[in-house]
Amino acid sequence: MFESAELGHKLSKEAYKKIEPQLRADLLDAQFALSKDASFPVIILISGVRGAGKGETVNLLNAWMDPRHIYAHAFDNPTDEELERPPMWRYWRALPPRGKIGMLFGSWYTAPIIDRVFKHAKSKDLMAAIEQINHLERMLADEGALILKFWFHLSKKAQRKRLKELQADPETSWKVTPRDWGFFKVYDRFYRISEQVLRETSTGHAPWLVVEGADPNYRYVTVGRTLLEAMRKRLQQNGDKKPRATQPAPLVTPVDNLHVLDKLDLGRTIAKKKYDAELKHLQGHLARLTRRPDFANHSVVCVFEGMDAAGKGGAIRRVTASLDARLYRTVPIAAPTDEEKAQPYLWRFWRHLPRKGRFVIYDRSWYGRVLVERIEGFCAEADWMRAYTEINDFEEQIAASGGIVCKFWLQISKEEQLKRFKEREVTSFKQFKITEEDWRNRERWDQYQKAAADMIDRTSTAHAPWTLVPANDKNFARITILQTLAKAIEDSLRSKA
Amino acid sequence: MFESAELGHKLSKEAYKKIEPQLRADLLDAQFALSKDASFPVIILISGVRGAGKGETVNLLNAWMDPRHIYAHAFDNPTDEELERPPMWRYWRALPPRGKIGMLFGSWYTAPIIDRVFKHAKSKDLMAAIEQINHLERMLADEGALILKFWFHLSKKAQRKRLKELQADPETSWKVTPRDWGFFKVYDRFYRISEQVLRETSTGHAPWLVVEGADPNYRYVTVGRTLLEAMRKRLQQNGDKKPRATQPAPLVTPVDNLHVLDKLDLGRTIAKKKYDAELKHLQGHLARLTRRPDFANHSVVCVFEGMDAAGKGGAIRRVTASLDARLYRTVPIAAPTDEEKAQPYLWRFWRHLPRKGRFVIYDRSWYGRVLVERIEGFCAEADWMRAYTEINDFEEQIAASGGIVCKFWLQISKEEQLKRFKEREVTSFKQFKITEEDWRNRERWDQYQKAAADMIDRTSTAHAPWTLVPANDKNFARITILQTLAKAIEDSLRSKA
Repeated sequence: MFESAELGHKLSKEAYKKIEPQLRADLLDAQFALSKDASFPVIILISGVRGAGKGETVNLLNAWMDPRHIYAHAFDNPTDEELERPPMWRYWRALPPRGKIGMLFGSWYTAPIIDRVFKHAKSKDLMAAIEQINHLERMLADEGALILKFWFHLSKKAQRKRLKELQADPETSWKVTPRDWGFFKVYDRFYRISEQVLRETSTGHAPWLVVEGADPNYRYVTVGRTLLEAMRKRLQQNGDKKPRATQPAPLVTPVDNLHVLDKLDLGRTIAKKKYDAELKHLQGHLARLTRRPDFANHSVVCVFEGMDAAGKGGAIRRVTASLDARLYRTVPIAAPTDEEKAQPYLWRFWRHLPRKGRFVIYDRSWYGRVLVERIEGFCAEADWMRAYTEINDFEEQIAASGGIVCKFWLQISKEEQLKRFKEREVTSFKQFKITEEDWRNRERWDQYQKAAADMIDRTSTAHAPWTLVPANDKNFARITILQTLAKAIEDSLRSKA
Repeated sequence: MFESAELGHKLSKEAYKKIEPQLRADLLDAQFALSKDASFPVIILISGVRGAGKGETVNLLNAWMDPRHIYAHAFDNPTDEELERPPMWRYWRALPPRGKIGMLFGSWYTAPIIDRVFKHAKSKDLMAAIEQINHLERMLADEGALILKFWFHLSKKAQRKRLKELQADPETSWKVTPRDWGFFKVYDRFYRISEQVLRETSTGHAPWLVVEGADPNYRYVTVGRTLLEAMRKRLQQNGDKKPRATQPAPLVTPVDNLHVLDKLDLGRTIAKKKYDAELKHLQGHLARLTRRPDFANHSVVCVFEGMDAAGKGGAIRRVTASLDARLYRTVPIAAPTDEEKAQPYLWRFWRHLPRKGRFVIYDRSWYGRVLVERIEGFCAEADWMRAYTEINDFEEQIAASGGIVCKFWLQISKEEQLKRFKEREVTSFKQFKITEEDWRNRERWDQYQKAAADMIDRTSTAHAPWTLVPANDKNFARITILQTLAKAIEDSLRSKA
């Protein structure tokens, strides 16, 4: 993949001076069109070999365009807040919003390549990383991002020459560190491994763009023109307002209309006295578990979903009552803010992921995508169809980094919901809980049940299983939830012991 | 201050049961009125002695009200991202937006009290902390926050009894840790120091509310009613739309209209050849300085202000050209997002403060408050008048935590501005830089000059001085800025060596 970037591409100073003013003007125009359109972000990855002019190129693009609409972000060693979350968390933090350009200097490619070059990771680790990257970029592209991945290349000879030149000049010698020479030593291995990674992650929606880094003028104009063309093309497409090409695959629709939720025995109850004793016991148990020293290596992500009035709030409070207030946070999912709307769908959930030793309880969650958004038509069919995979991937990342994912679907009968709605209307301090929207949603009961059944089928996984909770008896539901949660934590602690 | 909280206040179960439903309903109503009004946040601090029911009270308030509008936040040991910024940064991160209730469990009081109790801090440190807290709370109140500071108290006898009770029950014994008994041992000292702190930080706009913690029913109802009354009163006031009572003090207005900016010699220039050599030299010097190992203990905060077309962008790029792209971030100040608008004015600047070893360059800054917002009337006179103090306080905190604050005012003549505006209109890639707003601002030239002079008089401090830069010659300005910045970093590194 690097052959064309070792040809000695050059652009004369005269040619550069002729091209530059118009290119700058055009880039600025495109940038303003992007900012005005504000329907997609541009994500530029800056990668490649040392000494190939990555830093200078970032500086030049910053100088050519309006820096107010560019988010340049460089990744150093991860902080402890980052280390305590899935590795991708730090990149989610740095994504540019729609209408802006993000230049990521170092990216999700850096660690997998370096770790493999220096043999801190095995071949299969690299393959797993590549798959995860492909998922991420697929999702970003589906969310509308324009992704440009620049790889700045130098031949071995050119890299040696470049490092020596920099070192010889007292004004630039600071740029060359022993680390650079360390990298030069493993040039061939680095070449081989990066080529593999580039090959396996160059896709139609996120292609690699290899640029020869030896000649600054050539490099600047190549990057500038590539960026310009890509932005123009996308803006043009948006103007055409073509429908999306992707057609989702159909879901299984059982002809007998029978689904997993129908099989739940909603008649299950627990006697008050037994409930009181069990509640106290389980809360103490959970409290002790979360105070064990080894709990500090885990985080817990709880998701509560269910029809309106299914008892999510009450159940959550029975859980939090046993937790140290310093350990948990409840995140109720309401309408997204404008900063959230300008990001991929999952962004507003990523931002609340807990550190190790902490709980985050989502009162409603990312599953809104395949429930309310599906049913109300807030997103296209293709969008909620791909969400199942995106969600599984998200939860897998949480689990892989030591997170315990517990998802509860609280199931009530349609009659029980009606009873609770009516109760709420007469109890003054519960009136806020019942709105016209609740009555409207109730009319779509069957659609919600079907969507929930699809959701459970497609997102109940080994690392993040759904627990279906019969919730006509609130107390029974609460005990079930506390038991499940305590067991999940216990199992996790045991498996690591 | 604690005498009334050792009287053995009690509320019978019957009385509690009678009061509770109405109180819950009223609290919910008030909370919804707050959410609808959305003009101010409620900040509740939960502090006090161990075993006095802080956690339970937070849980109960969460249960009584709609948790979607409550931001409960507990502060554990600071993370490294927090440790590398001024101590208050972590609290700014956790502030509730307007329309919401924030319950801060542990707060800016915890560390100063504990550090003094265990003698990690001296008496004068505590006094400095108290002053800083009073500044913070004054600012929050001025920004509209309703602040309620609850202190849960137990007499020594009651605390011993409480801890023993919890310990005796196997279901709650986990709640008592050796640390709790360690605190009990220093009860008297803790009592004395907290009393001092409460006394010196109980103000009209942020009063302490001491609550006896022994009896849960008494505690719950007292907190609930206090919160209810405070919210009602404020919502009522907002309904009345009374004008603000505070009248700002007048600024000095010299009768000869002569101010600091007039004394600048704008005729200063530098020859092109000398500029080229100096630029290269200074950039190399700055590059080496920021790569010294001891630089990692500092952060740099640069502020660029000046009239339109004063050359801020070009000067910034001459600085960033010498920095490692991994070290710096340019933050251009544009219109605030809705998350930013829902917070105190300085919040959007606090959120971008650099970690140690990093640069953040603000292209325009918090000084907008006393420049454009003052002149365009975007905020009340009282608001921009208090901003001088708030800004000095903000910058002092940055400096105190190892930050180097460099502020540049780029001064050009009115004629030079006109020349540059006209140039911009004909250079295609600079057209984006010139808008109708620029021409409008130009009409208010004298007002801006007066506001800038006031700003410099009131915010040029030892820890964060202004550098006034004659900028009719762009190259002269750039060299001045690079020299100043390099010297500031050098001095800082030397003083610590």
